[in-house]
Amino acid sequence: MTERTPITLSRFAAGDAGQWQITSIREFRGGSLPSARFLAIDSPQTGNTAWTLRGAGSNLRYTTAAERVLLQAKQEGLGRPTSTRAALLPIRKSAEWWAMAQDERRAVYERGSHLPIGLDYLPGVARKLYHSRDHGEPFDFLTWFEFAPDQETAFDHMLVRLRTCAEWEYVDREIDIRLTRVSD
Amino acid sequence: MTERTPITLSRFAAGDAGQWQITSIREFRGGSLPSARFLAIDSPQTGNTAWTLRGAGSNLRYTTAAERVLLQAKQEGLGRPTSTRAALLPIRKSAEWWAMAQDERRAVYERGSHLPIGLDYLPGVARKLYHSRDHGEPFDFLTWFEFAPDQETAFDHMLVRLRTCAEWEYVDREIDIRLTRVSD
Repeated sequence: MTERTPITLSRFAAGDAGQWQITSIREFRGGSLPSARFLAIDSPQTGNTAWTLRGAGSNLRYTTAAERVLLQAKQEGLGRPTSTRAALLPIRKSAEWWAMAQDERRAVYERGSHLPIGLDYLPGVARKLYHSRDHGEPFDFLTWFEFAPDQETAFDHMLVRLRTCAEWEYVDREIDIRLTRVSD
Repeated sequence: MTERTPITLSRFAAGDAGQWQITSIREFRGGSLPSARFLAIDSPQTGNTAWTLRGAGSNLRYTTAAERVLLQAKQEGLGRPTSTRAALLPIRKSAEWWAMAQDERRAVYERGSHLPIGLDYLPGVARKLYHSRDHGEPFDFLTWFEFAPDQETAFDHMLVRLRTCAEWEYVDREIDIRLTRVSD
């Protein structure tokens, strides 16, 4: 029997200190976030905090078993030594999105080729999704990406393709935060 | 455009006071909860609290649009004057359940006829589901049911049928708390 691990909330705190230096905060839609120099992830709070976002790594919501096999065959984990660049994309979807039933949301997700687009950028781009909506947070999701510096152009290209998907018509707020890992 | 309402966490606090009197707490599987006389829902805390459970009303996770039409045609809301009886069923599912992809979980849900069984007891039994798992709570769901006293036998029958579903093989903790509304 698999051991049951309680879900914990991860904290992304922007301020004066952290493992990642913030190089840019760009609003894609719906209002930006205050500027800050560093991002601390799951660290004890030190100094001033410009903003804090929280989310929980949780179970899969749309991915099928067959799709997971495709993902697992190609993807690599976070924390690779070469992954010195990162992006944090807080995303909020509209009330219309959340009012849809499960099969309706899955149909939009599928029609937009969200998963095949993502697959094209594996294993270069590593990714982890945090769910925020049920925690009364300002965003519904926090997506964390890590990659080597030479993958950033590919990553930009992926965002352009995803944002033309039908699914993105339901995105009413999105910020693109880029970061560089602070050397040890 | 539909207005966006932030998700809030509902609190079920068992103790010395509340809108509902607890008539029984029965363990179905995996360990019971301490006894208490009353249950307060979303009320300011007063007196001693034996236990508190929290959950968020959230978006549909398995229900399809077609199934929602069936549900909405038959179901009635909480708070009916005749609904003087209630049941709170905190449920936890196993790590195996949560490790499954969306289509695998949906298939088990469907095979067990979870939805058709529930439909048989509408509109007599009104129901609201709260999601707890992502909040680090001891249970994954809190299901709240309200019905008239003459529906309690039907409600018991529904539970017997649901618990024979394949889906219940993944339930590793479940408590059945029965309540009577406190007269105004």
